Amino acid sequence: MSTPPDQITSLARRADAERNRDKILAAARSAFADPGTEVSMAEISRRAGVGMATLYRNFPGRRELLEALYTDEVNAICEAAEAPGASLLSWLRQLFAFFASKRHIAAELLKHTDSGDSVFGGSRARVTAAGQPLLAAAQQAREVRDDLTLEQVLDLIHAIATIRGDTSYVEAILQAALDGLRPSTDGKPTLEGSNP
Amino acid sequence: MSTPPDQITSLARRADAERNRDKILAAARSAFADPGTEVSMAEISRRAGVGMATLYRNFPGRRELLEALYTDEVNAICEAAEAPGASLLSWLRQLFAFFASKRHIAAELLKHTDSGDSVFGGSRARVTAAGQPLLAAAQQAREVRDDLTLEQVLDLIHAIATIRGDTSYVEAILQAALDGLRPSTDGKPTLEGSNP
Repeated sequence: MSTPPDQITSLARRADAERNRDKILAAARSAFADPGTEVSMAEISRRAGVGMATLYRNFPGRRELLEALYTDEVNAICEAAEAPGASLLSWLRQLFAFFASKRHIAAELLKHTDSGDSVFGGSRARVTAAGQPLLAAAQQAREVRDDLTLEQVLDLIHAIATIRGDTSYVEAILQAALDGLRPSTDGKPTLEGSNP
Repeated sequence: MSTPPDQITSLARRADAERNRDKILAAARSAFADPGTEVSMAEISRRAGVGMATLYRNFPGRRELLEALYTDEVNAICEAAEAPGASLLSWLRQLFAFFASKRHIAAELLKHTDSGDSVFGGSRARVTAAGQPLLAAAQQAREVRDDLTLEQVLDLIHAIATIRGDTSYVEAILQAALDGLRPSTDGKPTLEGSNP
């Protein structure tokens, strides 16, 4: 049975609409990542190459756009954790990049929300649930120390993502912290400062 | 030659004044460390057991008191780094405790200053200068990796001090980070996530 012509048109329209939405999100993502830019809806429409009407049909305002960006990134993080062959350490690096870029989006979001809790609270639980099996596997394989929970590991990565400095400056700090996740009991004594 | 009586009185007065100043600073330090307390000048006078006149003679206002607390702590940190037998790791733990407590004092200070830069900028340079020989010695003894500068190490410790949680929660994260300062090239391969 062949598809009737009006249904083809409708499918094509839906594909078009989805392409526009993706173009808008990609343009918004790059605009927000660009530190010098004042990110207005007009700027996003220009970058995406779609009209203002199309932009507003997809996202009634900046806040909806920011939330969509944020949710898309949280989805990507969760999918990355669940992908076959995912490892804790490569996932933590993705998360680090997310935190570092999220800083900007999260700050923008908070300007437009009375409370960011509903957006952030739910994401944290989702991300933690997605990463838990990776930590368990890494700990079972004795690749990662077993005296930290995933919450602690995420707090560490998040804290490092707040450090200001160029990429290579912060990257070296991140690498040291990731090295610190190695088990400390496999033959080498733990470095200890005297506990004050 | 014996000291004349009026000079004895003057020395005794000076010792008294110094004791009062120390009592005030100790009381203020513990009041600010107490998260539930509204720290007024009256509260500090009560805790120190000195009258309001004595308090204000020593510190014309909250801001002067906070700055004195801050400077005292920076001095202690610098002296600790310069003490004989000081080691990088035990010093970093002291610094961590300082950062964790400083958060409160620094936040209070910023409320009362147009710009905290003059207070903070100078301290950072002093602390860095004091810690530099400790890092150099630890790197030369191959106890600490040589791909980080002291600024990077301090940023790492500072970032961890901003993590919220009870002492044992954050302590475990700090220990992992300090373990990560070990040289990564001494026989054990560096853990690497795939660089995105």
